[in-house]
Amino acid sequence: MAHLLSASCPLNISSCSKNNSPNSLKKCFSSLPTSLTLQTSVKPFKTLPLNRKNAHKLLSVRATTLQQPTAKTGSGSDQTSGQESRPTRVMVIGGDGYCGWATSLHLSNKNYEVAIVDNLVRRHFDHQLGLDSLTPISSIHDRIRRWRSLTEKDISLYIGDVCDFEFLAEAFTSFKPDAVVHFGEQRSAPYSMIDRSRAVYTQQNNVLGTLNVLFAIKEFSEDCHLVKLGTMGEYGTPNIDIEEGYITITHNGRTDTLPYPKQASSFYHLSKVHDSNNIAFTCKAWGIRATDLNQGVVYGVRTDETAMHEELCNRFDYDGVFGTALNRFCVQAAVGHPLTVYGKGGQTRGYLDIRDTVQCVELAIATPAKRGEMRVFNQFTEQFSVNQLASLVTKAGEKLGIEVKTISVPNPRVEAEEHYYNAKHTKLIELGLQPHLLSDSLLDSLLNVAVQFKDRVDTKQIMPSVSWRKIGVKPKTVSA
Amino acid sequence: MAHLLSASCPLNISSCSKNNSPNSLKKCFSSLPTSLTLQTSVKPFKTLPLNRKNAHKLLSVRATTLQQPTAKTGSGSDQTSGQESRPTRVMVIGGDGYCGWATSLHLSNKNYEVAIVDNLVRRHFDHQLGLDSLTPISSIHDRIRRWRSLTEKDISLYIGDVCDFEFLAEAFTSFKPDAVVHFGEQRSAPYSMIDRSRAVYTQQNNVLGTLNVLFAIKEFSEDCHLVKLGTMGEYGTPNIDIEEGYITITHNGRTDTLPYPKQASSFYHLSKVHDSNNIAFTCKAWGIRATDLNQGVVYGVRTDETAMHEELCNRFDYDGVFGTALNRFCVQAAVGHPLTVYGKGGQTRGYLDIRDTVQCVELAIATPAKRGEMRVFNQFTEQFSVNQLASLVTKAGEKLGIEVKTISVPNPRVEAEEHYYNAKHTKLIELGLQPHLLSDSLLDSLLNVAVQFKDRVDTKQIMPSVSWRKIGVKPKTVSA
Repeated sequence: MAHLLSASCPLNISSCSKNNSPNSLKKCFSSLPTSLTLQTSVKPFKTLPLNRKNAHKLLSVRATTLQQPTAKTGSGSDQTSGQESRPTRVMVIGGDGYCGWATSLHLSNKNYEVAIVDNLVRRHFDHQLGLDSLTPISSIHDRIRRWRSLTEKDISLYIGDVCDFEFLAEAFTSFKPDAVVHFGEQRSAPYSMIDRSRAVYTQQNNVLGTLNVLFAIKEFSEDCHLVKLGTMGEYGTPNIDIEEGYITITHNGRTDTLPYPKQASSFYHLSKVHDSNNIAFTCKAWGIRATDLNQGVVYGVRTDETAMHEELCNRFDYDGVFGTALNRFCVQAAVGHPLTVYGKGGQTRGYLDIRDTVQCVELAIATPAKRGEMRVFNQFTEQFSVNQLASLVTKAGEKLGIEVKTISVPNPRVEAEEHYYNAKHTKLIELGLQPHLLSDSLLDSLLNVAVQFKDRVDTKQIMPSVSWRKIGVKPKTVSA
Repeated sequence: MAHLLSASCPLNISSCSKNNSPNSLKKCFSSLPTSLTLQTSVKPFKTLPLNRKNAHKLLSVRATTLQQPTAKTGSGSDQTSGQESRPTRVMVIGGDGYCGWATSLHLSNKNYEVAIVDNLVRRHFDHQLGLDSLTPISSIHDRIRRWRSLTEKDISLYIGDVCDFEFLAEAFTSFKPDAVVHFGEQRSAPYSMIDRSRAVYTQQNNVLGTLNVLFAIKEFSEDCHLVKLGTMGEYGTPNIDIEEGYITITHNGRTDTLPYPKQASSFYHLSKVHDSNNIAFTCKAWGIRATDLNQGVVYGVRTDETAMHEELCNRFDYDGVFGTALNRFCVQAAVGHPLTVYGKGGQTRGYLDIRDTVQCVELAIATPAKRGEMRVFNQFTEQFSVNQLASLVTKAGEKLGIEVKTISVPNPRVEAEEHYYNAKHTKLIELGLQPHLLSDSLLDSLLNVAVQFKDRVDTKQIMPSVSWRKIGVKPKTVSA
């Protein structure tokens, strides 16, 4: 029954994207529901029976645990002893978030045993700030049940906070991961610059959560490979080429290879720098094996797995706090809002498709770092300035019959608006990454999603609302 | 009355240190009390009247506030507007600690208006770990009252935690500092490596406390100069010369001056790296003026001010957790314990006398960083390997008739034991630092203090008790 759904999934719009004429698109979009209701041939989801093949052992580890994984591909303890054995059990911390959800499904689809660990605070942020994903997203419980009904693959769920070590320890000893993918951090630069309490929260949550993860690996699963999401923003915009994590420096006649100097420019980006430094130390002191993925700005919403069913749909943020540049531009184009370039628009960054995010994480897991190694990959595929992005969205809009305007708004951030930028990103390619490049078709596909859900856009959320310079100590709240 | 005390102060042992024969020293030491009791000519301290010249306004800011400063040298608000005006009001966070107390007295003696902000947690650590300073130290309240009675100088006291922003805000708005000297961090590498909870505490306390200080400056006193105690340990032991905070790198034909790469090797040292990165960002984003003092290992106990009275005596740590290398060696020599060299002993670091610590801080305050400037000084005067220190203490012991042995113990840390080390330290010299070098006479003076108080030594505390590799997640407690 479940597989019937994927063919008529509202988000499976690939058949539309090849034909770019406005009329054909209108026709295509009009056939899609604007809100998430299940096809009439399907029973209401709440009553869908859980897959009875898998026994459900309900844990009480501080919070909801949806299910225990069955040991279809071998128990964790058998798989963690040798570096050579293929990692099979992957814990995805932050697996309910934008990158985390796509990654969890991708890994599950590739027959990894996946456990999602998440405190669901990302959904809470939306509630508190009055934001919402452009795309309607299902609860994590419904998501996982739907995935199981479609694929007969289980994803374990541990709902709790990695800053709570007792919870994390229980999740580790119960699931016995071979690899931990750690997305479980507050991941928005503007969020970290809202007010003092959010700045402090961001560093506390991110840095201490990662410390706990490192301790859990050391204590319970010391051969486990940590795949940690960093950010290209750790490097800032130096006037020299950006290398992947390390740089060889010759100085006063002597030479050493040292951690690449970091110049982060928000409390969020700084938290990732702190993480990188902490992880590097534990690799050296404890023999932790770690891969730090310094990821660029992610765009896109669809992956092969999330496109299988509307209830698997990923979130798509376009607001001034959580929206990444290209996603925001596409939504702005869709609703006829001028693209908002911050300042001069010469800010250049690395970008990647979310389909490459999941591919990169899989590649990192499949070829683990050695014991004691702190491996750093720059995880992006192309670099663009904000002005280049605006220009690309404008051209793509033209093809869809959408007139796109661009305005410059005062830059709420403190950053160089014209600068040199040349960042290396060869290591993931060497491991086998096949990049999805930001071609016109990608833009169309992105724009399609934005147009499809444009009735859900809250235009009040588009403009930047957080100022790097005006951040204060009083808690900032959002009025209705 | 108060000034009479300084002449007969038990810690004023300079008259002894010039005559190095064992007999004359024995005679000298035998005249000194082994526990802190006041001279019979002085009334018991508890009944000493407070200096009535100064009105005491008792604040209730979450905790004890000993007094409000009087505005003898001008109110803070008059002094904070221009960069040119001499800073007069200095808040010393962590002013009850080893470096903080010496600095507070030194600045007060130099006619700065001083406020100590401290949560006294350093004393709490001693209670919890069963440790004690070699030298008997008075309560912060008694210390400050004694200082006032000796000098008629007031030191304000705000007892509370800088991680509690409400408390910190009250201290800032009440005291209105021109400069903040921030010693208020958990400052022991071994402490941060005892167990998971101490590792997390160290980073939480240090990083978030400093974030609060930065926010307080931005909000309440944006022209205030932050003088932040970092550590030379932030740099680690690279195979190239260590510069002062920044390094100019030419790479692939382009050149930039970037933050010097950091390779810290404990959760404590890492916390200081995190601080440095956070501070650098706020200098750029908010125009904070900051001086990061990357201090070496401090030795010595006496400064001009702490030597004025036994109740002003500074703490002297020799234990495996808080004791710094040279202090510990002197105590070991004094009690006939072999000097404990960790591993091969080639570990080389920068060292300085505590009299230079107070001088350096004063120099930094007197010539503030510019708005938006993150100035970094390497604060040490000489560099030694651990083996060199052991050799110097052995030779100094010989002069005092003490036979000193040295043993190598397994290194509890993870660090290079033989390495290149050449760290620059010219900026403070350029500002006028007159170093006290580690000559034989200094060693004698250090050894003298150790011998004077050797009956107080708890030899169980001398050996390293914390392992970098064996740190676990269970709370570690100390049995009686």
